[in-house]
Amino acid sequence: MKQIIFMLFGVVALAGVVAFTAPASLHADQEVAPIFVTKIPPRYRDWRLISVAHEEGSLNDIRAILGNDIAIKAYREGKLPFPDGAIIARIAWSYVPSEENNKVFGRAQSFVPGAPPDWYLQFMVKDSKKYAATGGWGYAQFNKDGKPADEAKLKTCFPCHVPVKARDFIFTRYAP
Amino acid sequence: MKQIIFMLFGVVALAGVVAFTAPASLHADQEVAPIFVTKIPPRYRDWRLISVAHEEGSLNDIRAILGNDIAIKAYREGKLPFPDGAIIARIAWSYVPSEENNKVFGRAQSFVPGAPPDWYLQFMVKDSKKYAATGGWGYAQFNKDGKPADEAKLKTCFPCHVPVKARDFIFTRYAP
Repeated sequence: MKQIIFMLFGVVALAGVVAFTAPASLHADQEVAPIFVTKIPPRYRDWRLISVAHEEGSLNDIRAILGNDIAIKAYREGKLPFPDGAIIARIAWSYVPSEENNKVFGRAQSFVPGAPPDWYLQFMVKDSKKYAATGGWGYAQFNKDGKPADEAKLKTCFPCHVPVKARDFIFTRYAP
Repeated sequence: MKQIIFMLFGVVALAGVVAFTAPASLHADQEVAPIFVTKIPPRYRDWRLISVAHEEGSLNDIRAILGNDIAIKAYREGKLPFPDGAIIARIAWSYVPSEENNKVFGRAQSFVPGAPPDWYLQFMVKDSKKYAATGGWGYAQFNKDGKPADEAKLKTCFPCHVPVKARDFIFTRYAP
């Protein structure tokens, strides 16, 4: 659960690209269910770098956070909230020592990406209308086989992002 | 010195872009001095991600390795040696705990980029002729103010890359 609790990202509905598990519009008096993203945004691995991070504990991963052009532009301009269309991707790999690097250093100090964990890919897609119930961001998670996380898991994403509402629910800061 | 000893990367001579501290051609019977790159390749921060890493010890940094289009293509195709024109960039940031992330996790486990260290930027530029004396790669390092490292420091780069000669002197593997 920890890995889900800490989704660093957000995402936007690209028409025809992203499918959703709930209808886009709900009456105001209905209980509003979060709406999740169930398709991997195409070519995300070609996106530019926002930052990197290491998580200890049960996650024990090393990760890169990438952004599509809209997200990168907003980050660099310090623009908040992120405009509709922004997508942030988080790729996580298990955190493993590099024996070959350590040999060169002469000590155990180098850690690199290993196998993908179950929480390999996460996305946040910004669409202020479609995802109004979850701060304007749709959440997604996929394992290495492209299988999306179920709705119960994804429901844990948004509540953990609320503490950074002032930064439009995004934890990751741009690393220059 | 440790930070220099472990330059993960390589670079190519872009005519008119990169300046060098030594002439490009030397007679075979002369002692061959390594040739270094003294200009930062333009727009490197827009390049695509190769991988990430964490170095403990005196470095204590977290880093991203990026590649220009030629380098990324070679990595993805598993092409060795890297073709002339390939440039690999390594950006390092000091490794700091994220208090705001840790609050959400409920424990100290999150580490993110902090201030740039003296070894902030490194590049390896592939030009098999120009840099023949150092395995076909020219080496470079810059601090956050864009000041290049001196030749004495850069001379320590190539010897440490020799153990990975079979991978064209490049430590970093592509993270999928």
